Amino acid sequence: MRGVLGNDQVRDGTAVERVYACDSYSIERHEPECVVFPRNTYETQLAVQRCIEIDVPFTARGAGTGLSGGVTAVKGGVIVSTKRMNQILEVDPVNRCTLVQAGVVNQKVNNAVKPFGLMFAPDPSSQTVCTIGGNINENSGGPHTLKYGVTADHVLQATLVDSRAQVIVAGSRVSGGPGIDPLSLVVGSEGTLGIVTEAWLRLVPMPERIETALIAFSTIRSAVDAVVEVMARGVIPAALEMMDKHVLSAVEKAFGLDYPKGSEALLLIECDGRSQQAESEIRSAIEACLDCGATNVETAGNEEDRKRLWTARKKGIGAMGRLAPTIVTHDGVIPRSRLPEMLEFVYAIAEENSLGVANIFHAGDGNLHPCFYFDEREPGTVERVLAAGEAVLDKCVELGGSVTGEHGIGLEKIDSWSKSLSANDLRLQTTVREAFDVSGLCNPCKVIPNQKGCVEHRRRWSGAAT
Amino acid sequence: MRGVLGNDQVRDGTAVERVYACDSYSIERHEPECVVFPRNTYETQLAVQRCIEIDVPFTARGAGTGLSGGVTAVKGGVIVSTKRMNQILEVDPVNRCTLVQAGVVNQKVNNAVKPFGLMFAPDPSSQTVCTIGGNINENSGGPHTLKYGVTADHVLQATLVDSRAQVIVAGSRVSGGPGIDPLSLVVGSEGTLGIVTEAWLRLVPMPERIETALIAFSTIRSAVDAVVEVMARGVIPAALEMMDKHVLSAVEKAFGLDYPKGSEALLLIECDGRSQQAESEIRSAIEACLDCGATNVETAGNEEDRKRLWTARKKGIGAMGRLAPTIVTHDGVIPRSRLPEMLEFVYAIAEENSLGVANIFHAGDGNLHPCFYFDEREPGTVERVLAAGEAVLDKCVELGGSVTGEHGIGLEKIDSWSKSLSANDLRLQTTVREAFDVSGLCNPCKVIPNQKGCVEHRRRWSGAAT
Repeated sequence: MRGVLGNDQVRDGTAVERVYACDSYSIERHEPECVVFPRNTYETQLAVQRCIEIDVPFTARGAGTGLSGGVTAVKGGVIVSTKRMNQILEVDPVNRCTLVQAGVVNQKVNNAVKPFGLMFAPDPSSQTVCTIGGNINENSGGPHTLKYGVTADHVLQATLVDSRAQVIVAGSRVSGGPGIDPLSLVVGSEGTLGIVTEAWLRLVPMPERIETALIAFSTIRSAVDAVVEVMARGVIPAALEMMDKHVLSAVEKAFGLDYPKGSEALLLIECDGRSQQAESEIRSAIEACLDCGATNVETAGNEEDRKRLWTARKKGIGAMGRLAPTIVTHDGVIPRSRLPEMLEFVYAIAEENSLGVANIFHAGDGNLHPCFYFDEREPGTVERVLAAGEAVLDKCVELGGSVTGEHGIGLEKIDSWSKSLSANDLRLQTTVREAFDVSGLCNPCKVIPNQKGCVEHRRRWSGAAT
Repeated sequence: MRGVLGNDQVRDGTAVERVYACDSYSIERHEPECVVFPRNTYETQLAVQRCIEIDVPFTARGAGTGLSGGVTAVKGGVIVSTKRMNQILEVDPVNRCTLVQAGVVNQKVNNAVKPFGLMFAPDPSSQTVCTIGGNINENSGGPHTLKYGVTADHVLQATLVDSRAQVIVAGSRVSGGPGIDPLSLVVGSEGTLGIVTEAWLRLVPMPERIETALIAFSTIRSAVDAVVEVMARGVIPAALEMMDKHVLSAVEKAFGLDYPKGSEALLLIECDGRSQQAESEIRSAIEACLDCGATNVETAGNEEDRKRLWTARKKGIGAMGRLAPTIVTHDGVIPRSRLPEMLEFVYAIAEENSLGVANIFHAGDGNLHPCFYFDEREPGTVERVLAAGEAVLDKCVELGGSVTGEHGIGLEKIDSWSKSLSANDLRLQTTVREAFDVSGLCNPCKVIPNQKGCVEHRRRWSGAAT
């Protein structure tokens, strides 16, 4: 690898290998044999070509903020870091798009296009560190997904290096375009089809005005009813987020902030667009909440207020460290209308398993993130957490939803997903993957159940976890 | 077939076969052996199962309004009409979606969900007759694509019968969802992956207010500049359509309407949303047009006015019959910023080939529809029309666009598309298609160049056409 890319672009050694052994899903760790840092598509081809020659697998990695183990080198081999593919190559304000390398940080794209009055809409919580390549692979969402859509709605074209070291250009800078759309396969493929090296991103105008409100409710049920009612009135808020009292108590402890006494849940609602539109939408949203029994409404008069109102949402998960030593965040999605019964189920299953649970999530999308908090040193706790997590995902499927809303399958959810996959689904998934991953070296043992050479591995690990 | 589906659901005979020999792309005609009318997914499976047993190809057909020959039975066999799959099965207003059969007419979906304050956004020109199945297969756009997106943005889940007579359910009613996304393959696949029988469609709130303006320009260039300027001011109009003076002159002749004297082009701009938003957006759009030299502005005070302002756009193509006996409408797409040079090219190539040309198109999307008008009885004209059409498509590709914006490849554009397809692209397209179309009986010889058993056919036809 050094011969091909130069010393500077290859690293190995215990320290490096340890750092690159997992992403933010740290339950399963596998050290790679080395990490390479190509600067462009060509150097990525060189690295992959070398992997083919020596028959070792390769796995692309951005900032490592993934939550389902998608960049873990399950079978060792080479981690291809996109860290040095960090250039913004072109901004085209008239056609509202920008060409960036895969390792550019999401927030940096936004900084770069701001002078043109534009923004890249997907805003995952890890926005200040996560990369565009990672966003594309995970089809990332964020608080503003409700109005603006997921990453798939904001990528026009992606360049990737496939597992024969060849370049595939998927998608097109113009809409329409002939034939079946390989771009739609690449977005959300969790790094299994090749290494994304560059992409043309769609940009949208920055809103002229943003209106933010934080609204308190004395019951979970009334907050959930308000979510449905806001949407029913034809408002499409930019964000519609919910936090329950356990999140609030953690945030109060961590940041000394006060929330209205007796609140069981808060909704954070943001409306944006042209000034008159944002004002009229937030008014309708607040009215809907009051009609559903909201007990307190606070609105932001300026940017500083706005940041304060967002604190519970943005820092809630971090603050939960105050509640217990260990936190496990789940990710599932259901139709919005099923939120009441789903939340009841989550609280009941936590109680049944003697676990704490806090809910902080994208309510408008029906995208749930129950956070179980506990002390893993207590015997039997890990087993109870796993059982509760599985029950939550099963319930999501039962209510017409799915086992992942935005965190992906990765390593974590292969077993959960395989329950709802038919033989025909599995055949399709496998065939499409093999059409891209001809050599079978690209990010093996992820997403798709029962891949060749991975069954043994799965058995060992799922045995170890239970 | 009669044995399987009953007499009532099978038709043949010369008259029937003639009607079903082509869609609205009538240059190439092939009569099927019979037409079947299944009423649901199960009956569709029966029909396909029978096709497999007797080894004849099958091709699904909705209303036959396609413009690229996608439902022509190139190798004979069975046409599977979706006409009797015409039921709206469920509306879910809270989660904003509806389950419909594939043969439901687009406009009927809108009528059905209107009482809930909702609409299905894709609005192709053939909206009053075309079917949802056709919209899905062609990934249809329409005047309101600029703001609301194409059909792909409005389908949550599709059920299809594949060429082994098995059912595939692609997509999910909730966003996110695991693995690569087969739904994104089905939408836009032009009927080559299977027969779509049902779909869950995403619905959006009907706008509270619609503001419409028809704006005149004394040069094409100033109209095109205005398109770019409107978008640059952060307005995303619901529609931004352009018609040149040739269209206007046809409409004046056909409907006795008057347009401002000396106009070289009109822009039809529509802004919608909440009242204050629509008003403020149309104001900004009109200001942008005036800054670019607009010579006349007419706005709609009521629904009747609005319909009148839309006349030139909605009836322009029909009216062109007044200009010459034959009209051929092309479809290509380019980045919005390249509109000026593209339009110059279109007028020049028409003149060079002694053809009339009128332009009426989705300017905001950069989606061009040059209509060549001529008298085909004049010797040499057809050749000149074909040459001009090919030059237009080549220019679209050269300017960073594509050979189809919304009409698809079908039969018509296989050769045009194949020019820009790499061997790797072709391999991917073929592999994915074969993953669905295992028996090879589903809508053969469409979209993908050089399919087995189709090369001879192509040679014969492209020979015949030139």
